[in-house]
Amino acid sequence: MKDMNSEIKEYYELLIMNYELIDSYPFYVEPFHVDFTGRIFLGVLGNHMLNAAGNHSQKRGWGISALNETKHTWVISRLCIEMMEMPRQYEHCEVRTWVKSVMRYFTNRNFSIHRADGTPLGYARSVWAMIDLETRKPCDLLSLYDGDILNYVVPEEENICPIEGHGRFRFQDPKLVRTIDTYYSDVDINGHINSIKYIEHILDLFPRERFEKQSVRRFEIAYKAESYLGDRLSFYEQPVSDDETDIEVRKNEGEVVCHAKVYFK
Amino acid sequence: MKDMNSEIKEYYELLIMNYELIDSYPFYVEPFHVDFTGRIFLGVLGNHMLNAAGNHSQKRGWGISALNETKHTWVISRLCIEMMEMPRQYEHCEVRTWVKSVMRYFTNRNFSIHRADGTPLGYARSVWAMIDLETRKPCDLLSLYDGDILNYVVPEEENICPIEGHGRFRFQDPKLVRTIDTYYSDVDINGHINSIKYIEHILDLFPRERFEKQSVRRFEIAYKAESYLGDRLSFYEQPVSDDETDIEVRKNEGEVVCHAKVYFK
Repeated sequence: MKDMNSEIKEYYELLIMNYELIDSYPFYVEPFHVDFTGRIFLGVLGNHMLNAAGNHSQKRGWGISALNETKHTWVISRLCIEMMEMPRQYEHCEVRTWVKSVMRYFTNRNFSIHRADGTPLGYARSVWAMIDLETRKPCDLLSLYDGDILNYVVPEEENICPIEGHGRFRFQDPKLVRTIDTYYSDVDINGHINSIKYIEHILDLFPRERFEKQSVRRFEIAYKAESYLGDRLSFYEQPVSDDETDIEVRKNEGEVVCHAKVYFK
Repeated sequence: MKDMNSEIKEYYELLIMNYELIDSYPFYVEPFHVDFTGRIFLGVLGNHMLNAAGNHSQKRGWGISALNETKHTWVISRLCIEMMEMPRQYEHCEVRTWVKSVMRYFTNRNFSIHRADGTPLGYARSVWAMIDLETRKPCDLLSLYDGDILNYVVPEEENICPIEGHGRFRFQDPKLVRTIDTYYSDVDINGHINSIKYIEHILDLFPRERFEKQSVRRFEIAYKAESYLGDRLSFYEQPVSDDETDIEVRKNEGEVVCHAKVYFK
């Protein structure tokens, strides 16, 4: 039987370990970051999550600037966000993030979103690959830097992310609903249409009435290919049920750029 | 002749007064907030300035939430931003803002943008009106709350904003260059196309090559009327010189919504 002291010691070790594995990224809901219902735009929330992920990696020596030195970078492959409640204008909130698991070519990073008082508002899951900047091919995460990344995987009991995993897309007969050109404001420092802009353009497919009556409960996106400034993006919709719509985005009437699923409630 | 002690006292009084009159709003240049040249988007910078203005007013009892109680609100009428240098990705910067002057129906608010070490990067001027939320008419700022706003005007020697005032627009034969529909992501909590989105849509009129070779030195915008979710916006261009373009934005092929001047360098 353990004595009291060793139990206390274990407890503090667990606290310190979690402090080191799970990061908190505080954010404030700014006036121009809310929609006409007064709730944060999903794209803005997604941006906070990507920032939280970037900081978390960077502090552990796996940030993009460190990786660039060895000609590697992170590429986001999937993101799914599920919210019980969207933060309102002027609220102080935080994103928590951690590494859930690491496989050879992918790592799973999870998130939770909280009010400043700790109340959980939602959760998110993401999948990332590491690519070689020269070959653009995925790298073996388990061998890179002697498998250092495994030191940051959170123990299963601390991985609190009670939402379903990434879903499947089964496009049969999606209807073309909009085609847009892309401009200066759409692209990031790499000249790629940025991951957040896709979320904005996809939600812009829905009419005002939808947002008046309902809110986005869950949003999934799978990034398939890069698109660039000047590419023409076509959006195809496939309703799955009253509250669930699958979206396919193609560039220049050809290659699929991303797939998304939007669930309203 | 003043003695040393009274000079020191005056100096500290000036410091305290300025501390009370000029606010600093720190910001960090996030990865998704920079364009393909690695510099902050002008719209994102404009958003930081509006946040700085909002905080500055709010701390002095003139914030939108306080004003709403007496059915008043601030409306931005003009904004002009002139940058020597645009902040780069990952830089820590600040916006400083203060009230330059107050007239009966308008107030002038100025800004300066600095690196964290204090280096000035640019300046901005803005003009605001206070309107009655019910009649939508401008209010007499000098009589509202017994002229309290005059307590916040910065003495002339502290008003450091060495850029030209707002220019004039003389549209003669502007050419229609683009028409866009507006969607969910374009509007703010009031259902109006938000002031920052106009800046983005206007800069999106310029081709990639422009931003590759040049950068925006100065941007002016005069807001004339509100537009709403679903309005169709038409953009008319009138080149003034190689590096200066005037833009007129109309809604639904009718009323002018705003005028802008973009200067490249």
